[in-house]
Amino acid sequence: MSEVVSILVETGRKIDPVMERYLSRHAAPEFLEAILYQVKAGGKRIRPALTMVSAGAAGGRIEDSYPAAAAVEIIHNYSLILDDIIDHSEKRRGKPTVWKKYGLSTAILVAVHYRESAVEALNDTPDPVAFHELLAWTDKELLDGERLDVLMEQAGREDEPYVVENRLAKMGIEDYLKMVEKKTARLIETSCRFGGMSVGAPRRIVEALARYGYNVGIAFQVGDDIIDLFGVEERTGKRVGQDIKEHKLGNVVTLLALEELEGSERGEELRRIITTPQISWGDVKRALEIIAETGAKKRAEEIRDRYVEEALQALNELGENEYTRLLRELAVFIKEREY
Amino acid sequence: MSEVVSILVETGRKIDPVMERYLSRHAAPEFLEAILYQVKAGGKRIRPALTMVSAGAAGGRIEDSYPAAAAVEIIHNYSLILDDIIDHSEKRRGKPTVWKKYGLSTAILVAVHYRESAVEALNDTPDPVAFHELLAWTDKELLDGERLDVLMEQAGREDEPYVVENRLAKMGIEDYLKMVEKKTARLIETSCRFGGMSVGAPRRIVEALARYGYNVGIAFQVGDDIIDLFGVEERTGKRVGQDIKEHKLGNVVTLLALEELEGSERGEELRRIITTPQISWGDVKRALEIIAETGAKKRAEEIRDRYVEEALQALNELGENEYTRLLRELAVFIKEREY
Repeated sequence: MSEVVSILVETGRKIDPVMERYLSRHAAPEFLEAILYQVKAGGKRIRPALTMVSAGAAGGRIEDSYPAAAAVEIIHNYSLILDDIIDHSEKRRGKPTVWKKYGLSTAILVAVHYRESAVEALNDTPDPVAFHELLAWTDKELLDGERLDVLMEQAGREDEPYVVENRLAKMGIEDYLKMVEKKTARLIETSCRFGGMSVGAPRRIVEALARYGYNVGIAFQVGDDIIDLFGVEERTGKRVGQDIKEHKLGNVVTLLALEELEGSERGEELRRIITTPQISWGDVKRALEIIAETGAKKRAEEIRDRYVEEALQALNELGENEYTRLLRELAVFIKEREY
Repeated sequence: MSEVVSILVETGRKIDPVMERYLSRHAAPEFLEAILYQVKAGGKRIRPALTMVSAGAAGGRIEDSYPAAAAVEIIHNYSLILDDIIDHSEKRRGKPTVWKKYGLSTAILVAVHYRESAVEALNDTPDPVAFHELLAWTDKELLDGERLDVLMEQAGREDEPYVVENRLAKMGIEDYLKMVEKKTARLIETSCRFGGMSVGAPRRIVEALARYGYNVGIAFQVGDDIIDLFGVEERTGKRVGQDIKEHKLGNVVTLLALEELEGSERGEELRRIITTPQISWGDVKRALEIIAETGAKKRAEEIRDRYVEEALQALNELGENEYTRLLRELAVFIKEREY
């Protein structure tokens, strides 16, 4: 792990007891194990770390951002529990997902409990109404991003009438960015914004932190897409091409390759693979070969780096201190990471 | 429909536009139809009506309770969308349930949207922190009640490890009341409490309204259990014995019958029917015959009427006006209703 990520992980871990306190509130003792399973199963705690570091970057006390930091990590895990149900994912971080371990009903009830715990955490912030309003909006964005992501799958879900009828077969880079904005960037934007708001930073500073978070969030996802198709398996621990296996048009590299190959034979072949109901790993390999022969990876890197630049520029609004430095290093890391 | 119920339905319907406004906020236009489907599919709006009538009973202006009334009805529908998934219910009020109509993923995302809309509604109440805290607690009670209800099923859900390992095979009337308190009474209690809080009623009045709601809520559920087993099919529109068909030990009449028949041959037979993986309608009929020969129905009616009495007593704290009268009539109606 890079040094900046190590520091963020260490910072984020500090809210674990705070988060567990909110999650334990009004929980039936015999249900607590199932409730805490998801957060005890791991996670890098990047979002709460961003809230805390943002509070510090705004010149405030880190501790004042704990309730908001706990809330964003609870919401992140809430969305993971539900996404794992929606995506039929059986494993996360090498362990069974909540629905796989306890069953669907239990997973849904645990998720409901998480959302209520986030409400309780935000009630302990300095301006609950503003925090509640923002998180409600963020969560509506999050669910709509998940909706778009599902609609960008090119096959599967034959038992889901809404998805089958509303699939997005034709889409461009603008649609992709809208999905990523909602699904990934908004919660990171809100995490940073919450840090500033928690310490009563002036509006200009809060907006700069939000702009940083938004751009870092998109850059992070674009980087993730590149790694999904071109990562080093020994370092990521995942097989490359997972997004193709799952019929995802919502990967920026795939999308750019299809755009470039529009009307050509190889473009047709790539599209055929992605829309095949059962994609073999041999098909995935062939798709990756086609994509590698285009300029898609390079163009995706350029897009990622443009968002990193925007994030760095937003930081110029902030005074220089150890926390601003961490935010800067994180943005640079996103440009360079390979796993 | 009885006159008091007609008035309540008419009152409750007034918050439909308010509720739809919150549900439409930050909704993707192409997703709005799916979002509004659940609330447009019907419902008697008893909970928001209780909020409004409670506001009036406390001597306040009904309109001041609209945001809280919208929030409780949104939460009620949120729990229905999720309960229908959990219970594999394909129909509600004669129409396909949300998951059946749109698919599981869509239903989950719609439910998430509902919870956020309730946050937005409560932000418009006179004391958001207090309202948020109470609703978070209520919702945690609600999910725990649903958990207990599921654990009281005596068969099925073989694919749900948590349920299979934690089934409540031995339980008494106390366990039943705890489940009903959480699953049904709390949200009705909170609906009434919110009415008082919305118009700034003094603590004594708010507590009396809460006590009324709590007791009416339990009485209502006990009455529902009786009707499930002994209702008139032509009036309820449902086949009697549904709870037995679904292996539910969480029906007070069944529970009281088993208690009375403890150790007898017929007691064993009744228990055998309820724990059979596939219960036929012939088995249900036999179970109903066994139950009818006990004093269980009469004892259940006594329990119901005791809670109605408690609810009526709570109303003595309130001044007399048209709204207090409505609350009183509703309590009396619960004692008498047969469908």
